[in-house]
Amino acid sequence: MSKIVPVGVSARHIHLTQEHIEILFGAGYQLTEFKPLSQPGQFAANETVAVIGSKGQFDKVRILGPARPASQLEISRTDSFAIGVKAPVRESGSIDGTPGITVKGPAGEVELQEGVIVAARHIHFHTSDAAKWDIKDKQLLKVRVGGERGLVFENVIARVSDSFALDMHIDTDEANGAGVKNGDSAEIVD
Amino acid sequence: MSKIVPVGVSARHIHLTQEHIEILFGAGYQLTEFKPLSQPGQFAANETVAVIGSKGQFDKVRILGPARPASQLEISRTDSFAIGVKAPVRESGSIDGTPGITVKGPAGEVELQEGVIVAARHIHFHTSDAAKWDIKDKQLLKVRVGGERGLVFENVIARVSDSFALDMHIDTDEANGAGVKNGDSAEIVD
Repeated sequence: MSKIVPVGVSARHIHLTQEHIEILFGAGYQLTEFKPLSQPGQFAANETVAVIGSKGQFDKVRILGPARPASQLEISRTDSFAIGVKAPVRESGSIDGTPGITVKGPAGEVELQEGVIVAARHIHFHTSDAAKWDIKDKQLLKVRVGGERGLVFENVIARVSDSFALDMHIDTDEANGAGVKNGDSAEIVD
Repeated sequence: MSKIVPVGVSARHIHLTQEHIEILFGAGYQLTEFKPLSQPGQFAANETVAVIGSKGQFDKVRILGPARPASQLEISRTDSFAIGVKAPVRESGSIDGTPGITVKGPAGEVELQEGVIVAARHIHFHTSDAAKWDIKDKQLLKVRVGGERGLVFENVIARVSDSFALDMHIDTDEANGAGVKNGDSAEIVD
């Protein structure tokens, strides 16, 4: 049985706490939805912020909602060189010891003390998908994409939950290096 | 016998004809060497040019010397989105039907009619390396890099010549997506 998963390409984006949203956009401010994401309840917000590193900045970084318990900026390694922030490859939410950055919104500025990461490649599985394919949460998978820039990604982390929809998340470096785009398919080969 | 090759990461760069060098830098101008590259006789020049696409431009694109029979700009797919040029993945020198771009130097401007590519991943083999490992010119190889972003590149083109030194060339998207840097090692696995 072929294990085919859709590919979602993550451009640089930021997750913010409600406290940080209010510093950046004003007291009581609530994010507004631009479009839904593949994971149920998650959305790209209309709001963007600037992030400022030692060597450069990005002016319009999309906020993904809803608000989270910790703020986290996810950038590609190419981005990390461009703005001068040594972001390690991490799973989302695993930000201990990661570098910080300055975040600027229309109403104020936040100096994040940590939270800048390059997201580790991963696949969201609904519990039923994982059961069908005998895949366990945290399992490391090998996933192949075809085409002229075809390759097999190793160390793809399985994340299994009732609240997830099947989707493989890679960043723009991985997608561009593999010649794949949003909505393409990949195959779990091991 | 392990087939280990050093990895060379190609940032965006341009090759120019002598005619174009003289338009961009002045009549009779000769490129000057900044540093030698891994391939014998090839060098990064001190000179840079600006390249201007429909959505943006890069101001300091390194010229690689010596002058060539055809001008060719090599960019990453990330770059191609940034400047708005639909560059296909091609082997160096295979530029028929590729898009052009505006190139600007201190003495003038050239409108390239074609020549913008995303370089196909490849390995340069000296004839003796290829013979030792039983690898033929144009053979497509699979090459693994390890580490937390480990992966196996497919469709890696073997290029064999007495004038080559052993080196695998990938672009910045591929390198950043695989978490490798200049001088790291990769293994030919098939």
